[in-house]
Amino acid sequence: MTEALLKLRPVGAAADEEVAVELPVALTVNGVSQAVMLASPADLEDFALGFALAEGWITQPHELVDLEVEARADGIELALTLTAAREQGLKLRRRQLAGRTGCGLCGLESLADFSALQPPPVQAPALAPGALGRAMAALPRAQVLNARCGGLHGAAWCAPDGTLRLAREDVGRHNALDKLIGARAREAVRRGAHEPGFVAMSSRASHELVHKSAMAGIGLLACVSAPSSLAVATAERLGLQLWAFVREGRATRYA
Amino acid sequence: MTEALLKLRPVGAAADEEVAVELPVALTVNGVSQAVMLASPADLEDFALGFALAEGWITQPHELVDLEVEARADGIELALTLTAAREQGLKLRRRQLAGRTGCGLCGLESLADFSALQPPPVQAPALAPGALGRAMAALPRAQVLNARCGGLHGAAWCAPDGTLRLAREDVGRHNALDKLIGARAREAVRRGAHEPGFVAMSSRASHELVHKSAMAGIGLLACVSAPSSLAVATAERLGLQLWAFVREGRATRYA
Repeated sequence: MTEALLKLRPVGAAADEEVAVELPVALTVNGVSQAVMLASPADLEDFALGFALAEGWITQPHELVDLEVEARADGIELALTLTAAREQGLKLRRRQLAGRTGCGLCGLESLADFSALQPPPVQAPALAPGALGRAMAALPRAQVLNARCGGLHGAAWCAPDGTLRLAREDVGRHNALDKLIGARAREAVRRGAHEPGFVAMSSRASHELVHKSAMAGIGLLACVSAPSSLAVATAERLGLQLWAFVREGRATRYA
Repeated sequence: MTEALLKLRPVGAAADEEVAVELPVALTVNGVSQAVMLASPADLEDFALGFALAEGWITQPHELVDLEVEARADGIELALTLTAAREQGLKLRRRQLAGRTGCGLCGLESLADFSALQPPPVQAPALAPGALGRAMAALPRAQVLNARCGGLHGAAWCAPDGTLRLAREDVGRHNALDKLIGARAREAVRRGAHEPGFVAMSSRASHELVHKSAMAGIGLLACVSAPSSLAVATAERLGLQLWAFVREGRATRYA
């Protein structure tokens, strides 16, 4: 598989530098193309599973029956096979969008499609004092690719005391979260249950992160940077606890 | 029109805070929905013109015949009217995508569609010594919304000596660049010609920023943060001069 870092020589430089690899990654379901994202080619199995969960293509990991990661000349294809029932549901959703192109909101095409997917309400875990700050302080150490070349966001799954359990990176913050969601789902399958916890992210708090978290059943999202109005509104609507500006010893709760 | 900032009270706080408004913005062409982006509701006329130019819907500002900005219950609609010739071209492109949904890459649907749009080669301006550093030092002062609430990216059009001429902001870096491209096109119409210059951005250097810049005929892009491998490759292919890590007195040229 493609490496997540690439060595290249800047113009006029004496030595190579590492830069983050960014590639078109196409997700196909039962042979039909569904989405193309620019992403970091690392943890793509987690990405496929997390994307499918966060977009509501499936609600349980076992509904992703098979996954093939295939290098193509112009990028990477993640070929997903879903259960027949889930494939049918996706076909119905696609039919409603027939004849249009979409952008920016994962296949959404018109304002009416926006936030059509309503996840069930989520519940935030009870946090130990200082957990958010501890998680955010630990996050940079888990961003091993970003430390080498910059330009990547990090998403971490954290225990209620702020200990980091899992971390994933990507050039796109939403991809980093998708990967984390996939990794967390796999971990839950292994353990037989989801551990309580929350997500810490190195980015701003956007609508898409709130929505993807809630779709995955995550009840608390903490971000290092600013929230947007829509992220706050979506968090309130879905019952997700949203923290932003979690840095320098402070943290502000917005929902 | 909706404000770009919203006052709200964080949980347990004694006073209101301002947060960046993020809204679904739908672009329709001659009545047909083309794309929905999450964007900051400021400079939307610039956004519509810049998006149309950067996506290759049009190549000249006058081909955007009319624009209406309409508030909807669930967001904002930018209703573009193009010339008949351009509308026809868009219809042909849409027909090729019929029956599919797309995501993340502005309507692209499969790997084969990726970088199908090939702008003509661009040329970088001759810079005065220290121009990149001067532009980047001035950029934060031009990010007036970001200074108030955080979470927004800035894009600036700069003269070859590094003086800022135009600046635009958005919660999405690609939207900020689209807005700047639109504002620059308007300015060129007013002056009768494009002034030489370059783009300075507060973000990482991604593929989409390189591609949009080249589509708009811009020959030099300077970013404060890291480049991605695809941004470097695209810049080399299109003849765009790409600078990244432009901060703290340094600047690295990648293409």
